Amino acid sequence: MQNFVFYNPTKLVFGKNTVEKIGEYLKKDNVKKVLLLAGGGSIKKNGVYEKVVRSLVENGVEKIEVWGVRPNPVLSKVKEAISVAKNENVDAILAVGGGSVIDSAKAVAAGVRYEGDVWDFYSGKAKVKEAMPLYAILTLSATGTEMNGNSVVTNEETLEKFSFSSIHVYPKVSVVDPEVQYTLPQNQLVNGAVDAISHVMEYYFDGEEVSLTDRIDEGIIKTIMQTTEVLLDDPKNYDARANFALSTTLALNGVSGLGHKGGDWSSHAIEHALSALNPDVAHGAGLAVVFPAWMKYVYSQAPERFVQFGENIFGLKDCKPEEAINALSDWYKKIGAPTTLKELGFKEEDIEKLTEIASKMAPMGKLKKLERDDIKKILEIAY
Amino acid sequence: MQNFVFYNPTKLVFGKNTVEKIGEYLKKDNVKKVLLLAGGGSIKKNGVYEKVVRSLVENGVEKIEVWGVRPNPVLSKVKEAISVAKNENVDAILAVGGGSVIDSAKAVAAGVRYEGDVWDFYSGKAKVKEAMPLYAILTLSATGTEMNGNSVVTNEETLEKFSFSSIHVYPKVSVVDPEVQYTLPQNQLVNGAVDAISHVMEYYFDGEEVSLTDRIDEGIIKTIMQTTEVLLDDPKNYDARANFALSTTLALNGVSGLGHKGGDWSSHAIEHALSALNPDVAHGAGLAVVFPAWMKYVYSQAPERFVQFGENIFGLKDCKPEEAINALSDWYKKIGAPTTLKELGFKEEDIEKLTEIASKMAPMGKLKKLERDDIKKILEIAY
Repeated sequence: MQNFVFYNPTKLVFGKNTVEKIGEYLKKDNVKKVLLLAGGGSIKKNGVYEKVVRSLVENGVEKIEVWGVRPNPVLSKVKEAISVAKNENVDAILAVGGGSVIDSAKAVAAGVRYEGDVWDFYSGKAKVKEAMPLYAILTLSATGTEMNGNSVVTNEETLEKFSFSSIHVYPKVSVVDPEVQYTLPQNQLVNGAVDAISHVMEYYFDGEEVSLTDRIDEGIIKTIMQTTEVLLDDPKNYDARANFALSTTLALNGVSGLGHKGGDWSSHAIEHALSALNPDVAHGAGLAVVFPAWMKYVYSQAPERFVQFGENIFGLKDCKPEEAINALSDWYKKIGAPTTLKELGFKEEDIEKLTEIASKMAPMGKLKKLERDDIKKILEIAY
Repeated sequence: MQNFVFYNPTKLVFGKNTVEKIGEYLKKDNVKKVLLLAGGGSIKKNGVYEKVVRSLVENGVEKIEVWGVRPNPVLSKVKEAISVAKNENVDAILAVGGGSVIDSAKAVAAGVRYEGDVWDFYSGKAKVKEAMPLYAILTLSATGTEMNGNSVVTNEETLEKFSFSSIHVYPKVSVVDPEVQYTLPQNQLVNGAVDAISHVMEYYFDGEEVSLTDRIDEGIIKTIMQTTEVLLDDPKNYDARANFALSTTLALNGVSGLGHKGGDWSSHAIEHALSALNPDVAHGAGLAVVFPAWMKYVYSQAPERFVQFGENIFGLKDCKPEEAINALSDWYKKIGAPTTLKELGFKEEDIEKLTEIASKMAPMGKLKKLERDDIKKILEIAY
């Protein structure tokens, strides 16, 4: 087991009828005015927006709104929100939406307190030293951003999709009400499942073995699989919705990586090239394609891990690593996720371009160090 | 799944050579002088004390020492330490030891900032409203106190062993170096295993079913069982020691009870009567006796949970609840834990006295509400 420091100061407020409590939490922290950051309007349809506004009013919290954060969020929107936050003298950011909104809000929270270009945090030119307090209401369980310090944003000008991580942008309070997700489109559920499973697998296959964390990680993955299947048939099953939501939070709040090497994020890095080149590719859909391809390329580094995965996740006794990987792909197919680059609309000639973009991060990887050539081969397998 | 708020602000610093970092953490938080609270002297034998002192000196942190916290810690020692902390104007408490030392330190941290009698927190007469910052170096993995707000202390005068819980006494930083536990006596390892397994089971059997938490809880229990067996043969096996330590922390830091009803703490309450009447009874040893007796008395409330427990922990297919309970008792026997009150030195006539003490907390319990009579019957089964 590797040495580690676990510190997660986010207060997770989880369950039914919790959205309407946000005003109380803000008031308790003496917040007078928030920037409410949101996406394309789904929170008006599912009733979340109305509950938030009522709760803010009841607790005497003013707000200014910025709308239009899109999936695979972009830098220009972040900059727009930073400028509004500065001009309006808000004292906290309130993100209401899915991973894109919360990730953008983290950049806003840090950017407001930084003189330079907020992209510096993503490019690695600067480290976050402070941030405005951030509060979040999660409406789409997938990325785990509600309980960590990670933010991923795309720079539309350079086609770079980069991330930063900082203790200063952990939400102070994150509200997760599984009921607000009853009306999510099925493909968002599926993409969320794939994304969260991938987060756990990045740790599971980073070359370290921690027996307790293995049991936890296998438990998270199995719970996501079981509940996804239930929810595809029965979207308003509360217990399934709640277990799914909680699993996706734990998939990336530090617990799933305890004692590990920090995870092998190659698949995520390669996937980011897909959605940078084509912003219509959902992150989860991209991962369903890239992750099994990565596994096929690297499993010989630790075949016994893949055998354990096959046995403990899929009940395959004495399987070969390839069988475990195929079982994962088959399950992705079963729930309606794409499994090839072709299905995502990419053409063979795109492989070169994707390799180009992904290789900006090379060398990458822990289980196997990947250079440009390795990345290209993985993309070919994925095609 | 029940609604919940998860908030755990303790920074867990885990791994090899971490004890010597304590001074840096204190310095970073601007602590100038600590009250170092310790037990009977084992930290001088295992080298922990020397490392702590060196680290404090190197970081310019003054200290005043209070020694002599004993297993099943007592109120008089807490009061002595509060008085020293007040007179010496320390600005933080540093607990170096096992659960008794850290539990006592929590009372000191809260007591220093309270005008009344610190016992008020235990009796329920007062709530903790603030506390001095608390830092901990754990030398015996068992109770989970290093990452929660619980404190259990015995009032020697009234023979009451009561607890309080407060967000204000979560340690700011807890250091867990598994290597310092290489020299622990085997019975302390065994008692720690039983205590931590019991913590998980209190949630597991509280009448709520949360599929993700079930998988996590079963993973914690199985990891404790596997690593205990390894450590009884090979006390310096780092991976086993580290997985054991991490499991005991997660057993009571909130993760094992996610979405549950707060746990059914009847067995703990009944056990406290044992060690209140005879302070030489270790908490873990008492639990090894009481918990299976409680299970036998209550399993008919939720037989399917006990069947699941038997299958997922012990691999018993289609077992009866009693078989699952017996498997647990058998495993306790196997590792050298007592399984009857007789083995703990109690006599048949003590049952009445134990019932008397435990019944002060009655009615208690969630899976089944226990009155005085029920408690007596459980103690009879335990005898």
